Amino acid sequence: MTDPLPHTLRSDAMDNRERILDAARALFSTQGLNVPMREIARRAGVGPATLYRRFPTKQMLVTEAFADQMRACRAIVDEGCVDPDPWRGLCLVIEKICELHARDRGFTEAFMSAFPGVTDIAAGREYTLKSVAGLAHRAKEAGRLRPDFVLDDLILMLMANKGIHATTTTTRVMASRRFAGFVIQAFQASDQHSPLPPTAWPASAEAEEGGG
Amino acid sequence: MTDPLPHTLRSDAMDNRERILDAARALFSTQGLNVPMREIARRAGVGPATLYRRFPTKQMLVTEAFADQMRACRAIVDEGCVDPDPWRGLCLVIEKICELHARDRGFTEAFMSAFPGVTDIAAGREYTLKSVAGLAHRAKEAGRLRPDFVLDDLILMLMANKGIHATTTTTRVMASRRFAGFVIQAFQASDQHSPLPPTAWPASAEAEEGGG
Repeated sequence: MTDPLPHTLRSDAMDNRERILDAARALFSTQGLNVPMREIARRAGVGPATLYRRFPTKQMLVTEAFADQMRACRAIVDEGCVDPDPWRGLCLVIEKICELHARDRGFTEAFMSAFPGVTDIAAGREYTLKSVAGLAHRAKEAGRLRPDFVLDDLILMLMANKGIHATTTTTRVMASRRFAGFVIQAFQASDQHSPLPPTAWPASAEAEEGGG
Repeated sequence: MTDPLPHTLRSDAMDNRERILDAARALFSTQGLNVPMREIARRAGVGPATLYRRFPTKQMLVTEAFADQMRACRAIVDEGCVDPDPWRGLCLVIEKICELHARDRGFTEAFMSAFPGVTDIAAGREYTLKSVAGLAHRAKEAGRLRPDFVLDDLILMLMANKGIHATTTTTRVMASRRFAGFVIQAFQASDQHSPLPPTAWPASAEAEEGGG
């Protein structure tokens, strides 16, 4: 009551930050990470100076925009990895990661792209892939995951999941859930399987093989 | 030899037509069907007047740009439908359609969108879906296609196939082939299957059910 002005300012500043992050997420999701900073400022309804004061670099903006999603992603793989049944853990990871990405297509963009300098996301991706590799290894040993699965197949399915369009997020998430159900069936070990066409990224499959 | 000028003109006109169609396919593939006509003219290196003389409407341009792909698509479903083994026929359709779409992402855009007035593509899509519905029905009766498959699952997989990105067409086609392999495993009837999450488009699934 004695100090309304600073309070208002702080609150405005907070609003600006959220407005910028919302605008960034919306634009990253439709136009990719290369959308110009000035377009993000325009959409957020702030001046470029305000944008740059809050987020001096695009890298910082990308990192902040997807900090929650990256945390959620790490939590999902952790949850999958502690499951004593590695196949059930892997299924949980596939279902939840597909849904997370379906809710925010900009996050897939950030997660998949090697956007230079966004070290938090690169570290999160590395953590995710390393954890899933361990889980997949155990699920194969348990005879539940098909032996010809390679880690790039998960990336392939995340790209594919991003292709699913719908007029609303609710419908997209629903479609993505059904898609994840199909992915799980496709990854499941079975006597009925025909051999798969080779992976498109054989170099990384070999590296994976060599790394155990 | 006696009439070199008309020949040259005809040849230029032919070049223009091909240049416009190439430009249109390239832009439709990256920016969707709503890309402005003037941008297509600019990329083709022709004036707007030349573009509109050849293709008075966007609809005519879309139809012409994807006439070959639409013919190929119809030929693929015809080939699948005449196979005495409906499941083998359906697998062939999935593999070849995924590859066709991986080679030209603009075609997926045209095939999926209900771009108004492009009657040839709408007719081609209807033909494709109707043929595949018949094939799927027979593959279910033969016990090879999972009974909870609905036609929208094919659309879902075509959308997903479009999400697969790669730096070259060759790599994208390769990735898409592996993807199609997974789709076939996922669609195959099996005792090991868990129930799938419901389809995101229940209305059309019901219509399909009702239509036999």
